[in-house]
Amino acid sequence: MDRRSFLRTSALGGTAAAATSLAAPALSAGREKLTMVTSWGRGLAGVFDAAVYMADAVNAMSDGTLEIEIKAAGELVGAFEVFDAVSSGQADMYHSADYYFVGQHPAFAFFTGVPFGMNATEYSNWYIQGGGAQRHAELGEIFNLKPFMAGNTGTQGGGWFRKEINGPEDFNGLKFRMPGLGGKALGHMGVSVQNIPGSEVYQALSSGAIDGTEWIGPWADEKAGFQEITKFYYAAGFHEPAAGLSASVNLERFNGLSKTHQNILEHAAGSCDRWSLAQFLNNNSQALTRLAAGGVKVLDFPDSVWDAFGAASQKVYDEFSSDDMFASILNEYRASMSASSGWLTASTDAYRKQRDRVLG
Amino acid sequence: MDRRSFLRTSALGGTAAAATSLAAPALSAGREKLTMVTSWGRGLAGVFDAAVYMADAVNAMSDGTLEIEIKAAGELVGAFEVFDAVSSGQADMYHSADYYFVGQHPAFAFFTGVPFGMNATEYSNWYIQGGGAQRHAELGEIFNLKPFMAGNTGTQGGGWFRKEINGPEDFNGLKFRMPGLGGKALGHMGVSVQNIPGSEVYQALSSGAIDGTEWIGPWADEKAGFQEITKFYYAAGFHEPAAGLSASVNLERFNGLSKTHQNILEHAAGSCDRWSLAQFLNNNSQALTRLAAGGVKVLDFPDSVWDAFGAASQKVYDEFSSDDMFASILNEYRASMSASSGWLTASTDAYRKQRDRVLG
Repeated sequence: MDRRSFLRTSALGGTAAAATSLAAPALSAGREKLTMVTSWGRGLAGVFDAAVYMADAVNAMSDGTLEIEIKAAGELVGAFEVFDAVSSGQADMYHSADYYFVGQHPAFAFFTGVPFGMNATEYSNWYIQGGGAQRHAELGEIFNLKPFMAGNTGTQGGGWFRKEINGPEDFNGLKFRMPGLGGKALGHMGVSVQNIPGSEVYQALSSGAIDGTEWIGPWADEKAGFQEITKFYYAAGFHEPAAGLSASVNLERFNGLSKTHQNILEHAAGSCDRWSLAQFLNNNSQALTRLAAGGVKVLDFPDSVWDAFGAASQKVYDEFSSDDMFASILNEYRASMSASSGWLTASTDAYRKQRDRVLG
Repeated sequence: MDRRSFLRTSALGGTAAAATSLAAPALSAGREKLTMVTSWGRGLAGVFDAAVYMADAVNAMSDGTLEIEIKAAGELVGAFEVFDAVSSGQADMYHSADYYFVGQHPAFAFFTGVPFGMNATEYSNWYIQGGGAQRHAELGEIFNLKPFMAGNTGTQGGGWFRKEINGPEDFNGLKFRMPGLGGKALGHMGVSVQNIPGSEVYQALSSGAIDGTEWIGPWADEKAGFQEITKFYYAAGFHEPAAGLSASVNLERFNGLSKTHQNILEHAAGSCDRWSLAQFLNNNSQALTRLAAGGVKVLDFPDSVWDAFGAASQKVYDEFSSDDMFASILNEYRASMSASSGWLTASTDAYRKQRDRVLG
């Protein structure tokens, strides 16, 4: 099924109707205010921080002529309602993770992270230089959105479990929180997959509504407090080798902004993207040490589990590859990943191996 | 020897004298023009591109109220004279690689790249989140500079040689181009080290003035044309595991700008930094394939050479560690590198190993 022409028709139809019913924001001449809805609880480590960093950058660079006002999840719309709110013009922009919106179009998964996909460096190469941003824009346009990459968590942790995982059979019947295509892959391994906003995961894990969860990485996970409930932490996961965060603006609203304001949004997103990845990675290292010192058992999945992740992920790719746009983005994505990783293996990986050997 | 108080006195003394003799740029109220001198030949792949990207971002975001005019190496001052030109106020800012200025202060090496140091991801973590930017600012202040990180080449190639390298003895008597602390390390291996601006390296290699050179990586090296002269290319090098590019503004000039213009410079640099790394890495992968197809032999140094690089680098660190500021930055840098690499090894490295195994 090619959902694209269907989606273009229905989404743009819906948007056009919504747009005509909206009043233009009332501000003095040359001053603009954008309401940014987010999928994040107020203050949620890393992800809400990235939204704040971008908004602050825009406010500061525009001398207040372009003001972004941030709404946490639930303040204007719910965590997963931000996409439709911005697509329809109810809000001006969102900060979120686009794989929450695979129901709107499966290809949005590529613009957060996909199973056995690119790490953050490879993803940046593709997004910024390899055509990824153009495909993201094309996908956004279907839904009346102008998307930017504005944050990255780096490789996400494999997640929190109540007991040790010894083989793929341990996933059977597990109630586990994981969004995106990774979650769909776990479904093929017998998992009852839950998609719960970040701010509600602690409660779900605590009450036993779920048996386990992935969230982001040691730092954000520690802030969420999962180590108070479960003690088995898998450091490397298959599901989000990097997770990009998106800042997407209602396309008509974006097109109505001055070129200067458009440029400010673009570079504020770029600056935020770089800052956010460093925030996650730098804090993760320190948090991992603290978690281990606090009694959390830091583990690696056995090869048999990785093999099962691989087989389940392939089933997901097969399902979605009947969508033309998904299939063509997947082809480009895989070609770029293979090219990127060639040089990274020959240079930085080879170097790090020698560095570790020589420095001891 | 602690050069810091000496340098602060002499550099600021010189600058203060220079500043009073300079007229303020004549532009209409609220409009500013910054002359950016660079160490790059006009159009030099990657490095000049980064300067252009930053300047374009500033021009576009400020609606032309802050204009950057770029001068290639030699147009206003020579490639290695940009530091003194901006420190003294002769030019407003430079785009360069700070390790060209280890003669001004050895600690500038950290803000490009140092032997057996951080790769680009680790470096970003330290610079943005681990205190690196603060130390860079502190160092810049001694010389009346406000520095920003505005570009990164990723791990640099080991370089071009006329014949295969079989052991450390092959370096003895070699005339080789390498700046920074890496070059000083090669000096301890019997190399006659040449520090030549990028735009002059081809001519030097071609004429036999040097026997070999490192420059950046496959893409920029291919553009420079070194494969026309030598056929042995070492992919991974010890000398610049990542090479940051700096955009540094005369500090008094920076302090005289509006807060809005200061913020535009800061985020334009951040956005440029992210873009530049992707430009190098994405192009490197494709160029490496082309070079190999064109008859270049892509090689790895043997362990014995890496061991010699390690011993020679340690001698360089020992020499400079008598400088208090160098020593304290080295301590912080090493602690951050060790912390960063802990999580990266447990997450993205472990993941990539499994990805390569599972995808085959």
